[in-house]
Amino acid sequence: MIIVLKPNTSKENVARVEELIKRKGLDTHVVNGAEMTVIGCIGDTTRVDPKIFEVDSSVDKVMHVQEPYKLANRAFHPEDSVVDVSGVKVGSGNMAFIAGPCSVETFDQVLEIAKAAKASGANLLRGGAFKPRTSPYSFQGLGLEGLDILYKVKEEVGLPIVTELMSAEYLDIFEEKVDLIQIGARNMQNFDLLKQLGKVKRPILLKRGLNATYEEWIMSAEYIMASGNENVILCERGIRTFESYTRNTLDLQSIPVLKKLTHLPVVIDPSHAGGKWWLVDSMAKAAVAAGADGLMIEVHNDPENALCDGAQSLKPEKFDKLMKELTAIANAVGKTF
Amino acid sequence: MIIVLKPNTSKENVARVEELIKRKGLDTHVVNGAEMTVIGCIGDTTRVDPKIFEVDSSVDKVMHVQEPYKLANRAFHPEDSVVDVSGVKVGSGNMAFIAGPCSVETFDQVLEIAKAAKASGANLLRGGAFKPRTSPYSFQGLGLEGLDILYKVKEEVGLPIVTELMSAEYLDIFEEKVDLIQIGARNMQNFDLLKQLGKVKRPILLKRGLNATYEEWIMSAEYIMASGNENVILCERGIRTFESYTRNTLDLQSIPVLKKLTHLPVVIDPSHAGGKWWLVDSMAKAAVAAGADGLMIEVHNDPENALCDGAQSLKPEKFDKLMKELTAIANAVGKTF
Amino acid sequence: MIIVLKPNTSKENVARVEELIKRKGLDTHVVNGAEMTVIGCIGDTTRVDPKIFEVDSSVDKVMHVQEPYKLANRAFHPEDSVVDVSGVKVGSGNMAFIAGPCSVETFDQVLEIAKAAKASGANLLRGGAFKPRTSPYSFQGLGLEGLDILYKVKEEVGLPIVTELMSAEYLDIFEEKVDLIQIGARNMQNFDLLKQLGKVKRPILLKRGLNATYEEWIMSAEYIMASGNENVILCERGIRTFESYTRNTLDLQSIPVLKKLTHLPVVIDPSHAGGKWWLVDSMAKAAVAAGADGLMIEVHNDPENALCDGAQSLKPEKFDKLMKELTAIANAVGKTF
Amino acid sequence: MIIVLKPNTSKENVARVEELIKRKGLDTHVVNGAEMTVIGCIGDTTRVDPKIFEVDSSVDKVMHVQEPYKLANRAFHPEDSVVDVSGVKVGSGNMAFIAGPCSVETFDQVLEIAKAAKASGANLLRGGAFKPRTSPYSFQGLGLEGLDILYKVKEEVGLPIVTELMSAEYLDIFEEKVDLIQIGARNMQNFDLLKQLGKVKRPILLKRGLNATYEEWIMSAEYIMASGNENVILCERGIRTFESYTRNTLDLQSIPVLKKLTHLPVVIDPSHAGGKWWLVDSMAKAAVAAGADGLMIEVHNDPENALCDGAQSLKPEKFDKLMKELTAIANAVGKTF
Repeated sequence: MIIVLKPNTSKENVARVEELIKRKGLDTHVVNGAEMTVIGCIGDTTRVDPKIFEVDSSVDKVMHVQEPYKLANRAFHPEDSVVDVSGVKVGSGNMAFIAGPCSVETFDQVLEIAKAAKASGANLLRGGAFKPRTSPYSFQGLGLEGLDILYKVKEEVGLPIVTELMSAEYLDIFEEKVDLIQIGARNMQNFDLLKQLGKVKRPILLKRGLNATYEEWIMSAEYIMASGNENVILCERGIRTFESYTRNTLDLQSIPVLKKLTHLPVVIDPSHAGGKWWLVDSMAKAAVAAGADGLMIEVHNDPENALCDGAQSLKPEKFDKLMKELTAIANAVGKTF
Repeated sequence: MIIVLKPNTSKENVARVEELIKRKGLDTHVVNGAEMTVIGCIGDTTRVDPKIFEVDSSVDKVMHVQEPYKLANRAFHPEDSVVDVSGVKVGSGNMAFIAGPCSVETFDQVLEIAKAAKASGANLLRGGAFKPRTSPYSFQGLGLEGLDILYKVKEEVGLPIVTELMSAEYLDIFEEKVDLIQIGARNMQNFDLLKQLGKVKRPILLKRGLNATYEEWIMSAEYIMASGNENVILCERGIRTFESYTRNTLDLQSIPVLKKLTHLPVVIDPSHAGGKWWLVDSMAKAAVAAGADGLMIEVHNDPENALCDGAQSLKPEKFDKLMKELTAIANAVGKTF
Repeated sequence: MIIVLKPNTSKENVARVEELIKRKGLDTHVVNGAEMTVIGCIGDTTRVDPKIFEVDSSVDKVMHVQEPYKLANRAFHPEDSVVDVSGVKVGSGNMAFIAGPCSVETFDQVLEIAKAAKASGANLLRGGAFKPRTSPYSFQGLGLEGLDILYKVKEEVGLPIVTELMSAEYLDIFEEKVDLIQIGARNMQNFDLLKQLGKVKRPILLKRGLNATYEEWIMSAEYIMASGNENVILCERGIRTFESYTRNTLDLQSIPVLKKLTHLPVVIDPSHAGGKWWLVDSMAKAAVAAGADGLMIEVHNDPENALCDGAQSLKPEKFDKLMKELTAIANAVGKTF
Repeated sequence: MIIVLKPNTSKENVARVEELIKRKGLDTHVVNGAEMTVIGCIGDTTRVDPKIFEVDSSVDKVMHVQEPYKLANRAFHPEDSVVDVSGVKVGSGNMAFIAGPCSVETFDQVLEIAKAAKASGANLLRGGAFKPRTSPYSFQGLGLEGLDILYKVKEEVGLPIVTELMSAEYLDIFEEKVDLIQIGARNMQNFDLLKQLGKVKRPILLKRGLNATYEEWIMSAEYIMASGNENVILCERGIRTFESYTRNTLDLQSIPVLKKLTHLPVVIDPSHAGGKWWLVDSMAKAAVAAGADGLMIEVHNDPENALCDGAQSLKPEKFDKLMKELTAIANAVGKTF
């Protein structure tokens, strides 16, 4: 941390600020310039809140040098993490292909989609049981009944399942039945929930908040990790921008950036990002070419009658064709799956 | 709702889409133009999810005409709502002046600030017991101990209290002790929590999400109202923009817009918005001039040693001076308090 | 400027970076910490491009300490600037009330509006002759004919005129006839035009770009000032945000922030910001309460038949009523006009 | 265009609005619903400004159905356009690989880079002569001298050249010497310049504005096309988002969206978007996988001593390796080059 003092700060005040810094367990190094005085803070600044210094009347700015996260930081964990989702490995060259309907509707629907997706190469099954909806009047998902359907399909088809948790109330049943617990964009900074996720044994798929910066997103992963669960997969699902033609803007730069800053696997969700099925094909290819560790794609056998987000779902035959093309791209970038 | 069909949609397909609309309980009216066919949907479209139509292969766009909210809508409730916070009325000319420290630290601290704030004209006391922090390593608030301190100060000073709830786990104790339950920006779309707030008897102070649109924000109020609790106060606290000099950008247009769209009271939090104490003065005045129903201002007796956000807190003497100036502005716009 | 080196940078590389800095005319001061090495650059860093250092393989980050602007910087010019617009002083307590139609349509129209606006207290007349329009098929303004109309009205009514310049091609005629040359949001970073504005004698009204940060905006003023013309007035006209209900979001925090960072006058345009006439009243009051040096308000005698942006124009009688109310607010914040 | 009237609009007012619409050369079709009356406007609405109706006291909303652009619209020009840049075809399967330094520095520098880039497969040479810089104190480019250097290298190496035009003042010399005239992000809505570009014979590379929507961007292309020059190539170069770790966020969804809405070629600039050389590799691959018609990549033989943006430049050997890998991706998506 670097603390820039206001011009013409007196020696007494410099000493006072140094004293304040030292009380937090940090060492100091003062740089006296013609137009400014700067104090370098030396030590573990991760655990010190910079706002404590900002408020001092002699302090002009506080600048970060170190990233504020530790457990998720690649600097302290240089190898890629590999997250094991009930036997499916994700990360470090192992790709997750998560497919399934936006919402769980019926057992037959999920079963049919799951079988087709598996045949096309998907290795994880997704389906929403609890749905976060902007309007209280929209379909809110089948809830526990939906979870049961997913679980039965998993037993029949043999694909581990991914589904969204919206409240700590259901954490026990999710831990029992769900192989990869998804936290949605709107709960990325539900800090209370994040802390509780640290206590479960299941891996977590942490979606990026609609306007989260990389650092905020990684800090939310850090919440889970610092609470005891280091099995976190990051999922980019589009950020809000001024463009309203697409639902959100997919940020594929997140792949190389997150791989530099963290060791966690990065999965891309092109279905939610654009909100249109005809964007999924090119964005899935782009994600694989850019080095993603996996994809999360909505597949529905009857999108025109889907209860939710049919507009962004691929039909099984389109998904099958896409998976074949993705194989060629993966080979071109030196990956196999 | 207006549904625009793709160019050259066949009569059969127009009829099929009409049939689909009618199945949702709406009437239809078809407009055949040279370059487009449009279907007007007539009836209560609030409870119909437009995405169901978007996915149809003959549909180009679905356009909303009515707002998707009912209970919060001024069209169906023309008079201003007045929310009663344990005897303090807010709305329709009655102003809330909510003051207090960002975080509850000690009983003596809160007591001293509360007495000073009350003497200056504040009618509600704020203080954070549970603090949403981006980093798991930052001070997270005193929790239930902080709530107890607030409650004791309330009993001694006689100001109803406002504090943030972060988890449904503590809803019972908040209902018992807290006069106005605050929901923070990061939980504005924690839909599960919103539904549970519908069941409590205490009024809710609903802060705007960092990038929420007016409609999304009102829809979150609608969640609470539709679940049974119509006592909601909206609180603008700044939105994220590209400007990084200030923490957030205060959107004062929200005042006239929300007053047109809804009947709920609108309170402004200039302390969090800018994140700098020297912005509070001018923004508080602007908010009152623009017609806000109240202000939420951080006041701290020792900002330089505050555990959280001291940089945005006013000292009691500055708050006192500000309250006197606000009175002059309020008079100039025809309000008294 | 502070340069943070990568962890474990060798002594040779530290020396090499120091050498690089010194070649740019700056002194250096090295801070060696356990986890980082930092070099403080001492001297006039305004004229050194930080990107030159960023690219060095030993450099991790370059952090600014000083603002990159000089002439516009309040630190070097502590008193408020007062800009003289053909006798109308703006800044340091002197307020500009700029009123008139969005587009110049006819001589009679502008004359009628100008007389009414003047009677209500406006001291500058606005009107668009050259109109920046998103579509090539929209009305582009009357051009030079519009400028002539404005000029004739000015001679008849005696109000100095403000109008937008879109191209250096017309700079001579603007310098001759226009009292305050407006540069629109879309040309805020038309650097070529900015340089040419430095050579004219007329003051410049520089609107904020749709997504300009304060620093970028001030740097555009600096372009004009560094080219020779220090008479710049800054005009906030709303920034683009995710909110689509209003055209843009008016950023009133810009008033106290710009007053702290620069010595230039700050004028607010509530008409363009919201794009709706019924937002003008409350936002104009808020701007005056927050300490603006002036307002720019669209007034039209027949908004329903205006050729451009009628939706955001006040009728003369509404403007008259507003001016009276603004007087009361101005008095409440200790200003008179 | 669909015009939604306010609730309870009288028959007389409906008739009046219809009359207003008809005066603009459109037909009308009125839909009377229980809660709303809607008027469908039939005819060529591209040339009618919707704001004319918005202002009417009986009108609630005006909704667009047709896109506001014609010449750039794929609906009226279903085949891909192929733009010929002095013999290099771009679009419809023909890819542009534009490489070169950010700024032209010396003849030897540009020559060396050009030879290397050509050997690696680049078919167009870029280099900045006039540089748009946020600060008046930053290096502004060599200007006409830089243009001469580029032109001489072109004659020696045989690569057509691409460089940015910042002012109409130099349009003649650009038309003479530059094969593809680049318009930068900050001038995307310099409408005056766009109109003049319609009169030149050279093709135009139109970069997306920092926060332009797809529609605004296409409308700027439409300005050039409507003024007489239909040879426009669109170039995505990143949009501003809240993420500050990267300079901008590359929007690769722009590729499939623009290909659906327009027939113009789409080129991606991964160097400017991220602002870091180590992002270029993965984003270039992603762009090709997603179907881009070309790439614009900064290549510099000595990035550490580049006068501008060295941090985002690839060294020739890295560019060479990338081009080989891009070939594999292009083959995987069925393209050859």
